Formats: sequence, C-alpha cells, structure tokens
Amino acid sequence: MLELLSEHGCFGGVQRFYRHASTAVGLPMRFSVFLPPAALAGVGTPRPALIYLAGLTCTEETFMIKGGAQRLAAQLGLILVAPDTSPRDTGIAGEADEWDFGAGAGFYLDATQAPWNAHWRMESYVAGELYDRVVGELGADPRRIGIFGHSMGGHGALVLAQRHRERFRSVSAFAPIAAPSQCPWGEKAFSRYLGDDRAQWLQYDASALMQAQPTAPFPGGILIDQGLADKFLADQLHPEAFEAACAAVGQPLTLRRHQGYDHGYYFISTWMEDHLRHHAAQLQDG
Amino acid sequence: MLELLSEHGCFGGVQRFYRHASTAVGLPMRFSVFLPPAALAGVGTPRPALIYLAGLTCTEETFMIKGGAQRLAAQLGLILVAPDTSPRDTGIAGEADEWDFGAGAGFYLDATQAPWNAHWRMESYVAGELYDRVVGELGADPRRIGIFGHSMGGHGALVLAQRHRERFRSVSAFAPIAAPSQCPWGEKAFSRYLGDDRAQWLQYDASALMQAQPTAPFPGGILIDQGLADKFLADQLHPEAFEAACAAVGQPLTLRRHQGYDHGYYFISTWMEDHLRHHAAQLQDG
Repeated sequence: MLELLSEHGCFGGVQRFYRHASTAVGLPMRFSVFLPPAALAGVGTPRPALIYLAGLTCTEETFMIKGGAQRLAAQLGLILVAPDTSPRDTGIAGEADEWDFGAGAGFYLDATQAPWNAHWRMESYVAGELYDRVVGELGADPRRIGIFGHSMGGHGALVLAQRHRERFRSVSAFAPIAAPSQCPWGEKAFSRYLGDDRAQWLQYDASALMQAQPTAPFPGGILIDQGLADKFLADQLHPEAFEAACAAVGQPLTLRRHQGYDHGYYFISTWMEDHLRHHAAQLQDG
Repeated sequence: MLELLSEHGCFGGVQRFYRHASTAVGLPMRFSVFLPPAALAGVGTPRPALIYLAGLTCTEETFMIKGGAQRLAAQLGLILVAPDTSPRDTGIAGEADEWDFGAGAGFYLDATQAPWNAHWRMESYVAGELYDRVVGELGADPRRIGIFGHSMGGHGALVLAQRHRERFRSVSAFAPIAAPSQCPWGEKAFSRYLGDDRAQWLQYDASALMQAQPTAPFPGGILIDQGLADKFLADQLHPEAFEAACAAVGQPLTLRRHQGYDHGYYFISTWMEDHLRHHAAQLQDG
C-alpha cells in the first residue's frame, strides 16, 4: 500500500510524496510523483511516464524541487517519478558515514556483498517493484516508460535501460557516470557492493554493456548532456567511453558538451526541456 | 566590493552568488543574481531587473533553486536578484532561536528597537544599498526595476514598492503577509523590531499604506496569487485587507485565488511565468 505523505497543487497537476513498505529493499522507501493534469482528468487511461534517478547525496525530493520539469511535463502529459537514492536507516553500521557510499549512494544495483546485500537492492526496486507500482497504482502505461537521471542516476538510467530493455522505451542522462568501473566513485562502490571480481562490475557499467550489445538497443537514439565546467568530468564521468561504445555498435547517441556549465541543477534545469521532449517523442504512441 | 562566491551556467546566462560588506546592515550580506544572455551580450546596456524577496527561514538561494524563473527571465532579458532574508551571525543572543523572528526573518524593515536596530536594517539594505549595487555594478536600469516576493517577502515587496515608489516601477506577490499588523507573525516581529506603538507598525503594513495612498500608486496594476490550500491563509496572510485597500483608492489589483495550491514553491513556480510577464510588460520601455 502506498502511504501519501503530502500532496501539492503544481502546474494544474499534483506533486505527491509517497512512502511504502518495499519488498525488494526490505524496508520502507520513499518516492515522489508528479501527475500531469491529463492524468487527473483521464483516470484509468494509461499515461506515459518518466522515472528520474538522482545523484549522490540526493533524495526523492531533489528532482522535483530543483529540476524544473513539472511545467513541461504538465503540457506534454507525462507522469514523473523519482525514487530515493538508496535504502535509509538500515541499521548497518556506518551506512551514512560516507557521502559517496551507502546511504544516498545506492548506485541502482543489487549488491551481492554483505552487509549491503541485505537491503541495497536498488535495481530490483527501481526496475521491478517501483516500476510495477507506477504502472499498477499510478496509471503509467507499461509500453511507454522512459528513464533518465543525473550523475550516479545517469549511470543508473543508462544501465537499467540496457538491462531491462523490454521495460524502458527511451533513455537519457545528464552528466552520467558513464564508465563506473574506470573511475574512483565506481571503483569504491562496486568493490564494496559487488566484490573484487571486476567481471561482475561490467554488468553495471553502461559503456561495457553497450560495447557488448549485438545491435543498437535504442534505435530512436540516446541523449546525453555534459557540462564542460563540470569538476567531475575528467576523473569520474568518462562520457567518451560511452560515446565510443555507442559508435562501435551503431547506437545513435546525441552527446552535447556545453561550455560554462557545471555538475549542478542550474545545468540540469537548463536542458530539462530537451530531455522531456526527447522522451515524449519516443513515447508518443501506443 | 562584490565578492563572487560561485558562478553557474544557466539557460544561456549565468547564475551568480555574491557576498559583500554591507554598510546598511554593518555586516557581510549575501545575495544571488541571474544575468540573462542579453546582459552578458550587451555589457553596458542597462537591463530591466526584478528583486525577489523570500519568506521566513529562506536564504538568497531559495528563489534561484526552487522558483524556476531563470528559463523565462533568459527569454525576456530580465536580471533577477534575490537577497538573503536577514543579517546573520550578528552576535546578538538568541538571534537564530526562533524560525519566525531574527535570523531568516528580517521582515524587510529598519528596526528601531535594541538590540535589533544594530543590524536589522533590511529596508535600507534592499531598497537602498542592494538596489544601488544592482544598478551600479550589475547593469540594471534604474528606470526599470520591479520587486516581488513570497509570504514575508510578499509583504516586503508590497511595502517597499509603496515606500519607495520612485525606485520600483512594478510589483507583485505570492501569498503575501498582506496586513502584518493584524496577524501573529507581524505582531510578534513588529513589536520587537519596532516597539509597542502600533502607529509605527502601519508604516510597514501593505494594506494600511495602500489605504493611505492619495491616488493609485501603481496604475499599471498589481498581481497577487494566493493558494486556497495554504495553511497560513486564514490566520496570517489577509489578502482581503489589501484587496479592500486597493479598492478604496482605485488601485488596480489582480488577486487570484487558486483551489488546491498551498504555501510552497510548487505553488510559486506554477504562477512564476505570469509574474515575470506582469513585470516585463510594465518594464518594457525606457
């Protein structure tokens, strides 16, 4: 059952915050939903939906407060969904001691290593349980669901879209961690969530997954925006690795590099409209 | 001298955060500025500007993060400016103990009562010093400056626009504290900042000021949006008092009441576009 924590009028639709007992995570989880006016007017008619995955330290509120997406989502008739970035209050010692690991840093994977594997099952949560609830309880059309995200969430979007191709019809990312097995954030998280076998890491590396695709998984194209004033670009993000992988398998990719833009939501909100239109075009018909 | 704390690319313009030694307040103050692309391209050509005053507990960041104003301000060529809501770190005992008084609750007035009169001089700061810096150092056109705000900041906008009519050409507000001398927030703040003489309070009461106007001060009209699901509406805001005062002096007022909208930024961002267009229309020509 979904517990409605709060509801706010927003651009003719409603902004909601929910909590629910998650079977995938084994603890309560929170997420946010924006329902456009069309979803309120046409209850029972399935609507296209976008799941947004946020970055390190963020919560289910970040995107809804800072992203500036609701205005255009209201016009385009898109449902927006944003989960929290990890389990919280798990009782695991030290879970919140590091800003780039543990709480707020779930990396959208299913951990295999103790103690994290008890609750850090964000892939099963996002691509399974949350997805099913958005379809079953919030009126999203399972044939028209896209996924996008920022930084760690951009990694999550590019990975989950590829690992669950049948569930996601469109994908985009802002400044994604595009090759996590080759960067400090990814090495730290993957070694502790997934163990020392680097072959396992490649299952959650967007560039490695793309490199291994037999054919282009998203023939409609993938959109990535990246700021050139992003202080994490050189060491952590590696969009060029994903770009090379897309080129190798013929995956259409629009990777835009923007002078003067950094890693934050002033960058993200600037290009939000283009991302919503990218998804809306691919989710247009049944 | 303005100290640039940070700068972020945003909708083709730049989002900046500044700190400076304030003579009005007698301490360092922070404010934020959005410069639209036109201001970057046409350095030296004065641009229209809007000063936004935020509500209780907010800072110079709140509007820029949550308001969603930069997109349209970029298109309309408007400079946006948002000061902090009070002095900070003044050394006055208990300054941050109450969320609705002291730090984060300057009420945009010049306090007359000790100890607050040492630093709580937000009217002189906003309508004087900050205004002059925005004109002198950031390229704003002094003939084309508007003011708006939310809640305590809506009070500030309606009051400062009337008290400094020659400085502000347009005014609007979201859910303003429209008659502070008649509500608990105002009574608490005014009695401690201004003393027990209620006649003094009326100098900072938007409805009383309007009631005393000889003719309509803003013939182009004032815009106010108010949510009807706003939990502060009944006890704290009193838009009907301001409405009656405007009617009494023939001041054109568009006061819109919105079913289902509350006191927060999901409400504010929904109607932001209308406010920017309201100001842009009145600031259009020289």
